[in-house]
Amino acid sequence: MPSSSYLTGLIGSGIGPSLSPALHEREAVRHGVPLLYRTLDLDVLGTPPEEVGELLRAARLLGFDGLNITHPCKQLVIEHLDELAPEAAELGAVNTVVLRDGRAVGHNTDVTGFAKAFARGLPDVPTGHVVQLGAGGAGAAVAHALLTLGVDRLTVCDTDPARAAALADALTARFGAGRADTGRPADVSTADGLVHATPTGMAAHPGLPLPAGLLHPRLWVAEVVYRPLRTQLLDTAAELGCRTLDGGGMAVFQAADAFRLFTGLEPHSDAMLADFAELAAPASLGGRHG
Amino acid sequence: MPSSSYLTGLIGSGIGPSLSPALHEREAVRHGVPLLYRTLDLDVLGTPPEEVGELLRAARLLGFDGLNITHPCKQLVIEHLDELAPEAAELGAVNTVVLRDGRAVGHNTDVTGFAKAFARGLPDVPTGHVVQLGAGGAGAAVAHALLTLGVDRLTVCDTDPARAAALADALTARFGAGRADTGRPADVSTADGLVHATPTGMAAHPGLPLPAGLLHPRLWVAEVVYRPLRTQLLDTAAELGCRTLDGGGMAVFQAADAFRLFTGLEPHSDAMLADFAELAAPASLGGRHG
Repeated sequence: MPSSSYLTGLIGSGIGPSLSPALHEREAVRHGVPLLYRTLDLDVLGTPPEEVGELLRAARLLGFDGLNITHPCKQLVIEHLDELAPEAAELGAVNTVVLRDGRAVGHNTDVTGFAKAFARGLPDVPTGHVVQLGAGGAGAAVAHALLTLGVDRLTVCDTDPARAAALADALTARFGAGRADTGRPADVSTADGLVHATPTGMAAHPGLPLPAGLLHPRLWVAEVVYRPLRTQLLDTAAELGCRTLDGGGMAVFQAADAFRLFTGLEPHSDAMLADFAELAAPASLGGRHG
Repeated sequence: MPSSSYLTGLIGSGIGPSLSPALHEREAVRHGVPLLYRTLDLDVLGTPPEEVGELLRAARLLGFDGLNITHPCKQLVIEHLDELAPEAAELGAVNTVVLRDGRAVGHNTDVTGFAKAFARGLPDVPTGHVVQLGAGGAGAAVAHALLTLGVDRLTVCDTDPARAAALADALTARFGAGRADTGRPADVSTADGLVHATPTGMAAHPGLPLPAGLLHPRLWVAEVVYRPLRTQLLDTAAELGCRTLDGGGMAVFQAADAFRLFTGLEPHSDAMLADFAELAAPASLGGRHG
């Protein structure tokens, strides 16, 4: 008989504390469809990241309907796919693989997830000049989302200047000259917004990612870290009067977009946001998209 | 987070019409636990039966909690397991594999399933001499169950005399001299009971497995075929006044016992029997345990 159930999972390293299983499985219960979301943790399995293709092959063989992919496999998985959706191809990173009709298609819902969270949480902020801290995997997704959303100029900062330059170059190639450059955290003093996409602020990396004195009340601040949901950066910015966006929205909307891809069902994003708030509240472990 | 969901499936050939997915998934709903039961059909996958070890390896890697195994892999799977439960070891056939704590343990719930169905459906019939038609995989399981239940003497018949002799020898070795022999369908004329364990009576193999004239009113008749649930053999026997047992009970109790092994939860066998009656009713495809 044709299956009307969904078998999904997450491949990555150190993903034991992920909230994705609960987010997906609770949403499936609301739809009344059987869905399992399993963590396939490279560390637990003893599988090197370079063997992600073996895991993918096993998942295809056993009838998985979809997989999320996270660090350190978002690039490594690409060579094992049959097709890439445009946003994944542009970014060169896949966080969602749909397995259907014998084909494996890569998507990136980090991009769409951040875009939806931003549009919902900070719908009317000025977007002339935005400074972004962090040019890693999460940073690349967020930067693509910001420029797609209409940010005029994005200044990328990273402790590794070459990584910042590479991302700025890729953004310029994609979105046009003048839309992206590299800079320093001090550039926020004249910026409209600050987007934070480094691990600083997670439990394992406490503290502020830039000197507090650089923040100013006209700045809005968007965070990618979501555990804790209120980072020291968000608290400091809010005390100054800045408008802020926590990392929960991106976590939820990337999951909602993956759920839609896996099942073809329209997710209840408000209910998923409520689930996330409940699930994230007691967590003491640090977490970050990527 | 620890999983409280169950990922299970069935490995075999031509298993598309199996009722096991619905039986297991409906029972899980009654327990309020997420459970998927997927068919891994060798014909669909293009996997030769000899490569069942590859499927098992993939299932272990991806976190399956258990698998049912059917034709033609019940013997082939054994070399890939870490341990066998006693009834599976005695029978030399596995229909259920539990994957837990890194170990794969083989069980045989065809034996326990038939025994429970028989004890429930024909609790007080005479069991001095029983004739069994069919010495294949299902026949071996049923024969073990019958002798375990206390049948004094079991006469095994098969169109392949060597197969009948091999089963009778194995039963004698296990249960003692005089408990099993080989014979002909005509032996039912003096027997207390007839157990039918060949494919005859399925939609693809219509007809009676023995001449109707051999049946007599003092005989009870137990059937292993369950699609259709009422075979021509059962109808003919019932018209003569024989007590009869259809193949549905074995189908349900083997599934119930597998569900208990997979989940540790006590199945609602009455509800599973009701599900089976509903699911089997409209089916026109033939089916048999094995």
